Amino acid sequence: MGKLIKKARSLAKSFRVEDGRKFRLKDFDPDETLGLEHEEGIKDRAANLLQQGVDILAEMQEKLYAQDRWALLLIFQAMDAAGKDGAIKHVMSGVNPQGCQVFNFKAPSPEELDHDFLWRTSKCLPERGRIGIFNRSYYEEVLVVRVHRELLTKQKLPASLVTKKIWKERFEDINAYERYLTRNGIAICKFFLNVSRGEQKKRFLERLDNPDKNWKFSVADAQERGHWDDYMEAYEDMIRNTATDYAPWYVVPADNKWFSRLVVAAGIVEALDGLKLAFPKVDEEKRKELTAARIILEEEKP
Amino acid sequence: MGKLIKKARSLAKSFRVEDGRKFRLKDFDPDETLGLEHEEGIKDRAANLLQQGVDILAEMQEKLYAQDRWALLLIFQAMDAAGKDGAIKHVMSGVNPQGCQVFNFKAPSPEELDHDFLWRTSKCLPERGRIGIFNRSYYEEVLVVRVHRELLTKQKLPASLVTKKIWKERFEDINAYERYLTRNGIAICKFFLNVSRGEQKKRFLERLDNPDKNWKFSVADAQERGHWDDYMEAYEDMIRNTATDYAPWYVVPADNKWFSRLVVAAGIVEALDGLKLAFPKVDEEKRKELTAARIILEEEKP
Repeated sequence: MGKLIKKARSLAKSFRVEDGRKFRLKDFDPDETLGLEHEEGIKDRAANLLQQGVDILAEMQEKLYAQDRWALLLIFQAMDAAGKDGAIKHVMSGVNPQGCQVFNFKAPSPEELDHDFLWRTSKCLPERGRIGIFNRSYYEEVLVVRVHRELLTKQKLPASLVTKKIWKERFEDINAYERYLTRNGIAICKFFLNVSRGEQKKRFLERLDNPDKNWKFSVADAQERGHWDDYMEAYEDMIRNTATDYAPWYVVPADNKWFSRLVVAAGIVEALDGLKLAFPKVDEEKRKELTAARIILEEEKP
Repeated sequence: MGKLIKKARSLAKSFRVEDGRKFRLKDFDPDETLGLEHEEGIKDRAANLLQQGVDILAEMQEKLYAQDRWALLLIFQAMDAAGKDGAIKHVMSGVNPQGCQVFNFKAPSPEELDHDFLWRTSKCLPERGRIGIFNRSYYEEVLVVRVHRELLTKQKLPASLVTKKIWKERFEDINAYERYLTRNGIAICKFFLNVSRGEQKKRFLERLDNPDKNWKFSVADAQERGHWDDYMEAYEDMIRNTATDYAPWYVVPADNKWFSRLVVAAGIVEALDGLKLAFPKVDEEKRKELTAARIILEEEKP
């Protein structure tokens, strides 16, 4: 297990951004596999490795739950068809659902728009001992809302508050919020699944060709491609401004699903490993209680 | 109306702390009335003035609601029997309940303790157009939790996060949070009802003597008096660290109820006045819609 954790750490490190100031998206290739794509039978070996990673995750999560001190928040952001749903499914499926909750954040409801932008996600933050997964998150506030400025109007903010500084302010507020969460026992790990425009097109066409995948496609998805460059700029600026040591971003190469899932699993293993989880120790008093309980049970009439 | 607003402003100013750095609680006398107690028939005149204030508040709140951009969050903190409930009742009773919600925060539930400390109050933040009132709030986290350290243990924070810096960190987190809320259209106004130890004793004895007030008393209230000095230190440090220009504290002299209610009303009037509220203007398009509606209504068969 120790060896695998070490491997996960080294994989995670290649794609982790803890200080965004010099971040440039073009330094991260969506097709990157660290040369692994040339190895023979790599997809099978990757599937095998992922399974081992998932097993470790399941063990760690049991300790997280038993210890009941930390929570882990995983945030997934990406363009459509980058593989968020698949990554969540394949990486987290081994974990006990009792200790893990996934929330999808789509277009906000009128009630949600009537509140501050962190309101709807704050309600869904994980309890101690749990893993909370945000499939999209408050980061949409500096992504889709930034690309489609008309969405900002829907938020009915007082006009005097909507200035040029609004994105900087949002970054600042999000950073302070994540620092607060970390200080209160919610560790944070953020994944940007970095898919290329070409690969997205290929996957969209698959969705159109395959009747079982038709439900996943809407015309709006295709239209959003027209804003690709704006989105990439928004993602880059987001990572520049919100990658911190307490809440790092993983820029996950997402053109090869087998690889991106390994990186996601590695990031989560790394995050949980950093919490130094252990089953709670039983103290002297508790041990006496347990002994007493055993006596009562054994004296019970059959 | 303008004259009364001016009066409210000047009253509010005397007790507002916008920069806590030099704040000392002993500079604020719980028995202060700005010399008004010597004026003849002052209690009747104060009641009259308060009524006028409440009327203005009701008008302002209608605009807040119609404009549907800003929300106002009022926070009340105090020792027991300082008059929080009475102030809320007398100052806010003229306001349309549809636009105003009061939340009481007592000892946190196990579910609440399982979350970050802002979780339970965040869910209750006011929607745009509304006034939200927190009777006690997340400030309990640096008051009762600070005086009774054993409560911190109940929060099940990871041990490594509970350091000497925890109160400073909470102040910092609260400030960042309130700045975020203000930036998102939730104006904040905080009241510390500053009652003296002697006056509290008098009011407790009244509660014991008066059967109609017995329900308001518990033995624990009397026991808390033993921690008076610790509480005063905690309040002082709280105001020092969290009084800001965007979320000021009012240190309201609370030994005379007639006076403390005037100050509270004045603070709220000042806060709402600062938002430059107005009924929404009807634009050309909307005017056409209204004209069309009139025609339809008038053409309707009787």
